[in-house]
Amino acid sequence: MARWQPGARQRLVMAAVDLFAEQGYDATTVVQIADRAGVTKSTFFRYFPDKRDVLTAGQAMLSRLLVEGIEQAPPDASPLTAVSHGLAAVSAQMTSFNRELGTKLGTVVAANAELQEREALKSAGMASAMTEALLARGFAEPVARLAAELGVLAFRTGFARWVAAEGTTLAEHTDAVLDELRAASADLG
Amino acid sequence: MARWQPGARQRLVMAAVDLFAEQGYDATTVVQIADRAGVTKSTFFRYFPDKRDVLTAGQAMLSRLLVEGIEQAPPDASPLTAVSHGLAAVSAQMTSFNRELGTKLGTVVAANAELQEREALKSAGMASAMTEALLARGFAEPVARLAAELGVLAFRTGFARWVAAEGTTLAEHTDAVLDELRAASADLG
Repeated sequence: MARWQPGARQRLVMAAVDLFAEQGYDATTVVQIADRAGVTKSTFFRYFPDKRDVLTAGQAMLSRLLVEGIEQAPPDASPLTAVSHGLAAVSAQMTSFNRELGTKLGTVVAANAELQEREALKSAGMASAMTEALLARGFAEPVARLAAELGVLAFRTGFARWVAAEGTTLAEHTDAVLDELRAASADLG
Repeated sequence: MARWQPGARQRLVMAAVDLFAEQGYDATTVVQIADRAGVTKSTFFRYFPDKRDVLTAGQAMLSRLLVEGIEQAPPDASPLTAVSHGLAAVSAQMTSFNRELGTKLGTVVAANAELQEREALKSAGMASAMTEALLARGFAEPVARLAAELGVLAFRTGFARWVAAEGTTLAEHTDAVLDELRAASADLG
């Protein structure tokens, strides 16, 4: 994986995360983020409506990739296989930028309630997007919702493992988590 | 179930939800909520730090009940049976106040992004509390997390059904959803 060649947008995201980690989310201003990224305040606002949005700008893209991957799974794919295709579509777009960001982001989010709410909403958005895509494939409601929730767990756990393991793909980890969850579902009682 | 006898706290919550529904969350002030509830602004602040907190004040209690119910399940309870005990402990505390609130709240939350984030965080908090309680019972990590996620789905779906069905208990609905999810888990593939 080549070292990422940052454009203004990626520089802004990384600058924001660094500042949030150094001095806290609340104490960080848009002007500071723009300065650190080497751009003007108006450049910041060309990319993001607000400080809050720096960290959630990738959400729409994430949901779109999940949905496309699920849509393009083979016709006979089981619910979890379809989810696995959705996660593979996300995995294919992951770069070293995402890895570096993921490394820094865990600490920042853990320290800030507002960012935790955004992360929780991101999970809910992913679950909802995957549920819709699975329903569109004809799976029944509880099966679709359950498979989507497993997909969210697989993404979150798999992403944390991927960030910590250089030289691997995200999909390797998300598939391993899906396997663990499939096995666990036999032990729910 | 007897009609709820509102104290100041419950009157404030209901007044807030009514105002959010009538004129929107953003347009509603603490003074308006206090007026509608027939109390002073300082009484409002004795109960809640902020407007945002009116709707999430019950979260800590919810998590505590789930954990206690899971702790008190029979020693040989399966993961989902333990979750069912957690949900039953919540169900035992539900009054007509919760039902009336639940009826009004759906519309209000659907119309406001900030409240959706709080709801998402509430689900994440429930999942986390149940996971901890299940791990403490000795269940393995993926099983505990999965059972907890099913518990959240059962609570959310079950609560919506309970609100719509007078004369039923919440636990009847959450147990039915757990059964549906148990059956669905056999079809994940």
